[in-house]
Amino acid sequence: MNKDKNISVFMGCESEYGEASMVVFGAPFDSTTSFRPGARFASSAMRLESYGLETYSPYQNKSLEDISVFDGGDLELCFGNSEAALDRIERFTADILADKKIPCMIGGEHLVTLGAVRAVFKKYPDLNVIHFDAHADLRDEYLGEKLSHACVMRRVWELTGDGKIYQFGIRSGDRSEFEWGKEHIITQKFNFDTLGDAVKALARKPVYFSLDLDVLDPSVFSGTGTPEPGGVTFRELLNAALKLKELNIVGFDINELSPHYDQSGASTAAACKILRELLLAFSE
Amino acid sequence: MNKDKNISVFMGCESEYGEASMVVFGAPFDSTTSFRPGARFASSAMRLESYGLETYSPYQNKSLEDISVFDGGDLELCFGNSEAALDRIERFTADILADKKIPCMIGGEHLVTLGAVRAVFKKYPDLNVIHFDAHADLRDEYLGEKLSHACVMRRVWELTGDGKIYQFGIRSGDRSEFEWGKEHIITQKFNFDTLGDAVKALARKPVYFSLDLDVLDPSVFSGTGTPEPGGVTFRELLNAALKLKELNIVGFDINELSPHYDQSGASTAAACKILRELLLAFSE
Amino acid sequence: MNKDKNISVFMGCESEYGEASMVVFGAPFDSTTSFRPGARFASSAMRLESYGLETYSPYQNKSLEDISVFDGGDLELCFGNSEAALDRIERFTADILADKKIPCMIGGEHLVTLGAVRAVFKKYPDLNVIHFDAHADLRDEYLGEKLSHACVMRRVWELTGDGKIYQFGIRSGDRSEFEWGKEHIITQKFNFDTLGDAVKALARKPVYFSLDLDVLDPSVFSGTGTPEPGGVTFRELLNAALKLKELNIVGFDINELSPHYDQSGASTAAACKILRELLLAFSE
Amino acid sequence: MNKDKNISVFMGCESEYGEASMVVFGAPFDSTTSFRPGARFASSAMRLESYGLETYSPYQNKSLEDISVFDGGDLELCFGNSEAALDRIERFTADILADKKIPCMIGGEHLVTLGAVRAVFKKYPDLNVIHFDAHADLRDEYLGEKLSHACVMRRVWELTGDGKIYQFGIRSGDRSEFEWGKEHIITQKFNFDTLGDAVKALARKPVYFSLDLDVLDPSVFSGTGTPEPGGVTFRELLNAALKLKELNIVGFDINELSPHYDQSGASTAAACKILRELLLAFSE
Amino acid sequence: MNKDKNISVFMGCESEYGEASMVVFGAPFDSTTSFRPGARFASSAMRLESYGLETYSPYQNKSLEDISVFDGGDLELCFGNSEAALDRIERFTADILADKKIPCMIGGEHLVTLGAVRAVFKKYPDLNVIHFDAHADLRDEYLGEKLSHACVMRRVWELTGDGKIYQFGIRSGDRSEFEWGKEHIITQKFNFDTLGDAVKALARKPVYFSLDLDVLDPSVFSGTGTPEPGGVTFRELLNAALKLKELNIVGFDINELSPHYDQSGASTAAACKILRELLLAFSE
Amino acid sequence: MNKDKNISVFMGCESEYGEASMVVFGAPFDSTTSFRPGARFASSAMRLESYGLETYSPYQNKSLEDISVFDGGDLELCFGNSEAALDRIERFTADILADKKIPCMIGGEHLVTLGAVRAVFKKYPDLNVIHFDAHADLRDEYLGEKLSHACVMRRVWELTGDGKIYQFGIRSGDRSEFEWGKEHIITQKFNFDTLGDAVKALARKPVYFSLDLDVLDPSVFSGTGTPEPGGVTFRELLNAALKLKELNIVGFDINELSPHYDQSGASTAAACKILRELLLAFSE
Repeated sequence: MNKDKNISVFMGCESEYGEASMVVFGAPFDSTTSFRPGARFASSAMRLESYGLETYSPYQNKSLEDISVFDGGDLELCFGNSEAALDRIERFTADILADKKIPCMIGGEHLVTLGAVRAVFKKYPDLNVIHFDAHADLRDEYLGEKLSHACVMRRVWELTGDGKIYQFGIRSGDRSEFEWGKEHIITQKFNFDTLGDAVKALARKPVYFSLDLDVLDPSVFSGTGTPEPGGVTFRELLNAALKLKELNIVGFDINELSPHYDQSGASTAAACKILRELLLAFSE
Repeated sequence: MNKDKNISVFMGCESEYGEASMVVFGAPFDSTTSFRPGARFASSAMRLESYGLETYSPYQNKSLEDISVFDGGDLELCFGNSEAALDRIERFTADILADKKIPCMIGGEHLVTLGAVRAVFKKYPDLNVIHFDAHADLRDEYLGEKLSHACVMRRVWELTGDGKIYQFGIRSGDRSEFEWGKEHIITQKFNFDTLGDAVKALARKPVYFSLDLDVLDPSVFSGTGTPEPGGVTFRELLNAALKLKELNIVGFDINELSPHYDQSGASTAAACKILRELLLAFSE
Repeated sequence: MNKDKNISVFMGCESEYGEASMVVFGAPFDSTTSFRPGARFASSAMRLESYGLETYSPYQNKSLEDISVFDGGDLELCFGNSEAALDRIERFTADILADKKIPCMIGGEHLVTLGAVRAVFKKYPDLNVIHFDAHADLRDEYLGEKLSHACVMRRVWELTGDGKIYQFGIRSGDRSEFEWGKEHIITQKFNFDTLGDAVKALARKPVYFSLDLDVLDPSVFSGTGTPEPGGVTFRELLNAALKLKELNIVGFDINELSPHYDQSGASTAAACKILRELLLAFSE
Repeated sequence: MNKDKNISVFMGCESEYGEASMVVFGAPFDSTTSFRPGARFASSAMRLESYGLETYSPYQNKSLEDISVFDGGDLELCFGNSEAALDRIERFTADILADKKIPCMIGGEHLVTLGAVRAVFKKYPDLNVIHFDAHADLRDEYLGEKLSHACVMRRVWELTGDGKIYQFGIRSGDRSEFEWGKEHIITQKFNFDTLGDAVKALARKPVYFSLDLDVLDPSVFSGTGTPEPGGVTFRELLNAALKLKELNIVGFDINELSPHYDQSGASTAAACKILRELLLAFSE
Repeated sequence: MNKDKNISVFMGCESEYGEASMVVFGAPFDSTTSFRPGARFASSAMRLESYGLETYSPYQNKSLEDISVFDGGDLELCFGNSEAALDRIERFTADILADKKIPCMIGGEHLVTLGAVRAVFKKYPDLNVIHFDAHADLRDEYLGEKLSHACVMRRVWELTGDGKIYQFGIRSGDRSEFEWGKEHIITQKFNFDTLGDAVKALARKPVYFSLDLDVLDPSVFSGTGTPEPGGVTFRELLNAALKLKELNIVGFDINELSPHYDQSGASTAAACKILRELLLAFSE
Repeated sequence: MNKDKNISVFMGCESEYGEASMVVFGAPFDSTTSFRPGARFASSAMRLESYGLETYSPYQNKSLEDISVFDGGDLELCFGNSEAALDRIERFTADILADKKIPCMIGGEHLVTLGAVRAVFKKYPDLNVIHFDAHADLRDEYLGEKLSHACVMRRVWELTGDGKIYQFGIRSGDRSEFEWGKEHIITQKFNFDTLGDAVKALARKPVYFSLDLDVLDPSVFSGTGTPEPGGVTFRELLNAALKLKELNIVGFDINELSPHYDQSGASTAAACKILRELLLAFSE
């Protein structure tokens, strides 16, 4: 008879902390979401739904059982206080990095990326960022607020400086974001056409990868706060993600799943499958 | 041909501002909601859904067309910054009071009540509060945060002092909230049994009325962030609300409808009907 | 091996036409619904969902297998043409009556009642009507239209004349409907308090019974076009319906279920169970 | 303090009537819908949901703030009376045209197109029509009714005569519609392959554009009354729509969104984004 | 930093196994459900949703933090093989009993009760059963199958013999079930009127309590496979459950929540709250 | 007046049994589904929803009215007893084959295929199988059970032997399934690239076609128990299915639609449209 308390981890992430090379954790925060909130429920939904999928990937001929991942559960974050939430995320990420493991954060809204990047940047001051998203997220402020999902890449740029952020799939923003972006970062609108160039340019450099799942077309991924039609297909995203295998990924996140707008479970399944592929791709 | 822009008001709230004795406005904020967010969508949903109801009340034999209410639309509030949101609500409420009109706020989560009460309290320093709710909302802090829906009545108490808050229908809280409450406020658990006493005690005094709709049983009102079984029926709430007619209500709010969890529209209809009855009851 | 085409009937309504004393049929029409349409799907949903219930009633100690009911399926009605739809319903009902069977129509929106009553009234010129509803449905016209669900009882009154319509449970209407009603019909607001009187008054007279299911509180029956809080409980409706056993019911209908707003199936189950009880109560 | 009543317009359509070159209005009518009704809710849902998008288009490098559009709200149409509804739409459209503005109607079911085309045809007797749709809509009658969404293009043809209607994306109809179509109109089944030819042929001629959104595949646009698999992608529709920039579009509509079948909001977002692109493309 | 794997337990059930006096576990099995399946998801949904409630009960002035409960997670049961599933449940329950703890099982469909009762009966051969349910569940077989949710109390009776099963709230069954029941068990139809008598009769005897949550009216609890209108209110169920405090409860279960039919979460909240009250009531 | 009981058949399948060359029937069984159950509701949902489509196919220029199909309704299968269900399916299929008609089964979960194949294999001992699916379904057992949807093709292989099963679109399975598959069957991962080869190889041989609809991408077909992103588009599936016209199809099935996860109806429409095309393609 099992006398252990109920364990709930993402499928196949069964390692003990000490043995793991990667650490998955959830950051259930969505207080700055400006349209439909609910990304706070992503990590718990993904853990449950992951059991509808397999640990083995026929794309990479590799299984989560072949690698060592620890699932540390969800951080307890205070809704309504962004700075406190980011601080908690930064400290947790720093601990993982200090133990020489790769942090893999499940958002939450996109603002949580800032907390993780702060920690990663401290360790890797020459950090580069690859960012897949429908939205540019480059506003300097949003309704007077600097800490908003709509500003997260601008805040990241304040750390990394010019020429370090590579965006792909962007199809929404205001005019000023696109114009500012031309001066300071590298933006590929609508698709991944120039991803190969970025991968070449970033060879051997430390790279943080931030995946806002709404880069996917809402046909594939309707369960998100701000569905933006005209996105990439699942196969296009999968192929793009697998190209990142060649890079030195030192941390990554996957965010903006909002399970309450996913009546069928298909969006949650998409998030889980992408996470499986990323874990397999970025291990060792 | 109509050459005016599209107007969207709560049914029957067609007065111009100058002529109105009551002002309805929305406070679409839910950043501190700790469970299911979405109360931000309440006011716009209620305006649309109100047209499934009638302006005439057979309970009071009175119609919204008989009174003068102005609907000022929704405040633009910044998600993720509670203090800024409360400040905006306070200023708007103060303006309405300065013009000798009764403010009627549609939340949003329950924290928005604090903004309105701050303004009302400035005008009426001997303010009393009647509070219908499932939850005591008396925590001193919640996950380290003072400004939270779970603390709103504690913050209100800091303004009014002991013996001024009358709670009804409370059926959830932690032990310390109930114990603290015994010392500082008047709590009627589960129902409205002692409401008559409160009405007598408060005759002619200025009273603010805050209605957290989750005082209703989830059978009637499932469309809310934290459904708490064991609540009152719609008829019980209606009867209780009509008893408040005898009081000098100087401001009121209705909050915590979360329309995305109301697939049938029945919860939104309940919110609209209660709002109609309150407007009719509290007009002069 | 079964070589018959697929039969789909309401549970227990397995009789051949010739042997049946009652005939169930659907009138899937909702073109004049002014708020949420969808009552057109009621009859097919009820046939499917009825198999979640039993044919036996512990309330009446009687089973649908003890009586003889034929299910004639759904009429093919043209959306957008009310007069044509009513005409089709009238002719079908007249045929059933000509064969000395009791018609039991499943709406559809409430306007369909007019078609059935026209046929019944031709056979019984001294017809009385018992009407359970949340809404008075007594407008002379609605947005310029005489044939509307909101006017159906006014149209019925044009046939029966004063003093023949008994309404129960009414909790919505405009002021003029209630005032007009006082002159011409008998209205019991909110509940069934005076139903016993009506049953006495109508003893041995021909009675048509029209049940708008939204007389139920939306807690019980949210799956309807215009949920109106403050209605009766299931047990109250059931008790009231069983009181009608003493009457000479010559036809009846049940209407305004809108299954697409019934995510859980509970409203459809309520409609099915009430229909079972009515069939059992009005048979012999 | 804002003392204006609550204004609710489609994002960026903030112009006064006098200054606008285009007028958006809603035609919330769906009484002849033969399968799932609900298109009546499209225009109000689109106004609310549009705020999840941006006014700026990275496809056209143009913003709604650069052009002048007035949103006149919704017409009040009587459900169940098609001729009255069409008449109301025709008169409103004629007024807009008389003021030398371009009408942009948000349906409603597809029948509403007939009202608008009647007005446009009176001003431009040599009118051509471009029609994107999954369904041919060429029946002479449907269940005995001439005024039905299934007949709308046949009714339009009765005005324009042979060779003036160009259909694209058609993948559903009965055999007789396709055969009749070959004689009288130009039909491109399944896709937009011959759209370039049509654009050439119609250069400088007055053209009305009717977009039934179900031309999109249900993967992109499931929130519609009659989902028909096998449609075009969002990018294919967007590219096709932008090709129409070269034409002299004198009026247009977008129809058949049914928001109650759009749990995630993704279909409503698609409708909003396409409307934004059309407004930008057709402005001067 | 937390280096433990993610633990997911029902709120307040934080004890280690050794210290606990009660053991909660899930039995996610629903293969014999004859109408809407999905009860397999109940236990994981309840664990997640329980955090919307409090551990403290104002009804009993007692908190889950005052008692010692261990949550052992879910059994892995094979869908489609009822006997194997029951065997697994029986063995797990027997282990708990052997350790002198009270088993509390979260179903699953009602058939799972048989597995637990088999184990409890072995320890307590004079076992009595209190059964709250909408359905009699007394069929000898269902579609030829002996192991079915519709037969579970008949199977239990085969263990306990006559006069040991007390049913309450029953409002559905076929005629033969009610007739058989009169001979062999004690049935209170529709309500809890005679519960006091049963409690008296069973004083000091070992009692197993099986709670099919569909005893609740679907207004309170729509998220279940076979909603049966006409049930008890939440307060009625709560009061009845608290009466059982006086008994020697040696095991209990709570079953038939089907979360996928609970769009708002209200049914899951009801299940969680009842479970909290039962744990508090039956501890020591 | 129609005096026949209500007939409910898939659109256009109006033939009498004797005249039909194909027989459609439902196998509503899903007891071994390991994730989200509900495929039991597929056949009844498809019959109802099929009336949103046309009987005429513009892809094949052929109508269901041109061919002869009988719809025999649904088998009554016992939930929880897989062997009994398979036996019932086998006998029914055998009867159809004995009458020289082509059986077309609507599942149900995928395990039902085994029942049909058993009957077909008895008539055609050299049977080949074409299998479109997301999942390999080649496990020898699943949680100790041999009769599981996850094992169905392994069980089929035990009948046909090596080299007779051709899988397409497979994108999920554990490693051992893919490895076993290489030895014993022909697997095309992800797409239909080698379907032309299979069609050539199988010319004139008896072929059973089993279509698990989850081969479609969840964007097209979210209404299924285990959505697996990365699938084929509707047009790809349609084209592949039409290629099978050249084969000697002696039986086929379509399975795994789970309508309760199809809020919009789009998945059910996809299933209906594919079924229409298959019936047209395989009729003589």
